[in-house]
Amino acid sequence: MASRPEEFARYRQQMNERILSVDNQVVRRFFALDKQTYADSEHLSAQTKELLGLVASLVLRCDDCIAYHLAQSRKQGLTPAQIFEAMSVGLVVGGSIVIPHLRRAVDFLDQLESDETPAAEGCELHVQSQSAGESSASR
Amino acid sequence: MASRPEEFARYRQQMNERILSVDNQVVRRFFALDKQTYADSEHLSAQTKELLGLVASLVLRCDDCIAYHLAQSRKQGLTPAQIFEAMSVGLVVGGSIVIPHLRRAVDFLDQLESDETPAAEGCELHVQSQSAGESSASR
Amino acid sequence: MASRPEEFARYRQQMNERILSVDNQVVRRFFALDKQTYADSEHLSAQTKELLGLVASLVLRCDDCIAYHLAQSRKQGLTPAQIFEAMSVGLVVGGSIVIPHLRRAVDFLDQLESDETPAAEGCELHVQSQSAGESSASR
Amino acid sequence: MASRPEEFARYRQQMNERILSVDNQVVRRFFALDKQTYADSEHLSAQTKELLGLVASLVLRCDDCIAYHLAQSRKQGLTPAQIFEAMSVGLVVGGSIVIPHLRRAVDFLDQLESDETPAAEGCELHVQSQSAGESSASR
Amino acid sequence: MASRPEEFARYRQQMNERILSVDNQVVRRFFALDKQTYADSEHLSAQTKELLGLVASLVLRCDDCIAYHLAQSRKQGLTPAQIFEAMSVGLVVGGSIVIPHLRRAVDFLDQLESDETPAAEGCELHVQSQSAGESSASR
Amino acid sequence: MASRPEEFARYRQQMNERILSVDNQVVRRFFALDKQTYADSEHLSAQTKELLGLVASLVLRCDDCIAYHLAQSRKQGLTPAQIFEAMSVGLVVGGSIVIPHLRRAVDFLDQLESDETPAAEGCELHVQSQSAGESSASR
Repeated sequence: MASRPEEFARYRQQMNERILSVDNQVVRRFFALDKQTYADSEHLSAQTKELLGLVASLVLRCDDCIAYHLAQSRKQGLTPAQIFEAMSVGLVVGGSIVIPHLRRAVDFLDQLESDETPAAEGCELHVQSQSAGESSASR
Repeated sequence: MASRPEEFARYRQQMNERILSVDNQVVRRFFALDKQTYADSEHLSAQTKELLGLVASLVLRCDDCIAYHLAQSRKQGLTPAQIFEAMSVGLVVGGSIVIPHLRRAVDFLDQLESDETPAAEGCELHVQSQSAGESSASR
Repeated sequence: MASRPEEFARYRQQMNERILSVDNQVVRRFFALDKQTYADSEHLSAQTKELLGLVASLVLRCDDCIAYHLAQSRKQGLTPAQIFEAMSVGLVVGGSIVIPHLRRAVDFLDQLESDETPAAEGCELHVQSQSAGESSASR
Repeated sequence: MASRPEEFARYRQQMNERILSVDNQVVRRFFALDKQTYADSEHLSAQTKELLGLVASLVLRCDDCIAYHLAQSRKQGLTPAQIFEAMSVGLVVGGSIVIPHLRRAVDFLDQLESDETPAAEGCELHVQSQSAGESSASR
Repeated sequence: MASRPEEFARYRQQMNERILSVDNQVVRRFFALDKQTYADSEHLSAQTKELLGLVASLVLRCDDCIAYHLAQSRKQGLTPAQIFEAMSVGLVVGGSIVIPHLRRAVDFLDQLESDETPAAEGCELHVQSQSAGESSASR
Repeated sequence: MASRPEEFARYRQQMNERILSVDNQVVRRFFALDKQTYADSEHLSAQTKELLGLVASLVLRCDDCIAYHLAQSRKQGLTPAQIFEAMSVGLVVGGSIVIPHLRRAVDFLDQLESDETPAAEGCELHVQSQSAGESSASR
């Protein structure tokens, strides 16, 4: 059975293809621009940009956007601890209304970890040991 | 005459004192927590956290919050070019509805620069020369 | 098994009846007003009003509201291509945060089409052929 | 099989524990503050505060927040009729975009009632008889 | 010179009349419904409803709506301390993004007080002495 | 002295130029895309698209965005009555929180009219006579 991260990625891929199959230049350009937005650049690292996208998604309370940026943040090498701390900023900015999204975000992040870690030790220890010694969100 | 950044800082200070003079523990704790949120920590730099606060404020379209994080971002040593690029992420996430806030943000940022730079050369050049050679949003 | 549009319509109907069974005049009047809002009028067609309701729902990111206005837009005779283009405006106004809602909207719209079209040819072709030659969103 | 209120409470509990297991003081303090916010105080009753939390959640359209405050409101002794009327304020403030959340809220509230009432008579009568003779939202 | 509360009330009145002069039944009915929403009712007091409207306005961050409900809350006999505590709920629900609106709200509330109190003693003392001995937000 | 529409247009122009002077491709492409969004197209008229942008701006409560789309809607030949009716949809979708923005929108629209009409008769009559006999929001 597909995990939630896998299922999310599959539906996202399928519907993006469906949307881009429509002959609408505004939408196609928007999708291209969205991709370009998170690229490594002269001034900010892709890591920092992913965290910006994540926190923006969190305060706007878009679960799918959060899930996407969680997955990308992990791919960019950010640790769960860095990601969690970024989300703490979103929690204070956005208020308690953010909490249900934070719950689902942490759940999704844990599932991402267990997808990636065949022989995962306890999640909590994993988070903490992984984050120790890493203190930079960007290059 | 006070510049807009000065006027903003003065009113913010005055009303924060007024609010904290009220005997309400929830509000006082929230204000203390808000301050703690942006401190340098083990996992993320204060620079990165300011950018997170800035972009969250931008997509939530709160001009005063944006102004505050712009000023803090400059104090933390982020360049105008780094700040502008962070805001470009907020623009794409939040859409064209963000544009009027981006206008005021750039205006405020320019005023912050001219407050700080007695003999400022042209702003645009200033931004670009300052950002050249700086590529890291965080330590 | 009920399709998603059928299931949506059923639950909507059931809960509207439940809500209107409560003796609360404010809520009942609001529901009546909501219905009146989208009626054909002297100044704007019901088609244009449905698109307005749809795009407002899209930028406010309310999936059920979007689904409702998609179904109504089709009933009013708007083509999938007109609906898609209206949603492109919502995407640019509301930003990338709108994308997951756009995915579900297009999915729902496709399901509406296949509910209505027993012997549907490929959706994509269907959309394009249907929209060709129609260029007006309203009377 | 767990009812929706039970399932909601279980997941909420589980993920709150997960979140509080992370060593992040900002998040932990926020959770403590959130709890303190709704306590009976010198100026406002816990009943009134729950209704404030409920309506704030409704206009911000956060289903889980709404579910939580519905359950708390019932625990604090507010009647379904009081709760429904509070939600009518949220409907007018927040607009038709609130309606799908109102549907799910009323559904959840009805399920709360049937969880609590083993031999429930018809819901509608129940709501009305319960609210008759009760006219105060707070002490 | 008109105080801010006076100026606010004047412009609100003038533009409401302008809007209601337009022959649009939906808008007129909405305005009538909005007024009806805050009336004393069988289940909730006008006081409680004003606080609900206030906190909904605060978390949705609408300064004019906040100003209106502040003035109405005072007219309904709520104390500044009750109003402030209601706003503390909105702060926690809505997050730090609410703070600039809280600043302006407290400023407006203080101006309301000084408009009403020709020989006002210090505001802070005034707030506290007024709230002492009042513990009910509703009848 | 510049009227509010003139002042708004001037500041918008000035800051757009400032923003586009920064060497950031994401922002420049977003601005180009935003312009393209409202062009006459095969499926929807520029008139309909302006109304979509207007109502999206209204429910998202962005005064400057509203002002811009009001001016564009008039330039595209939409009547004040059509524009007002479109805004009535936004009012019902977005709720009473939209009212202060509706006040400023109607004020701005009236100023647009008096800028354009040197010898303006009473605004209200103007609106009604202009809308009479026009029933189409789009080509």
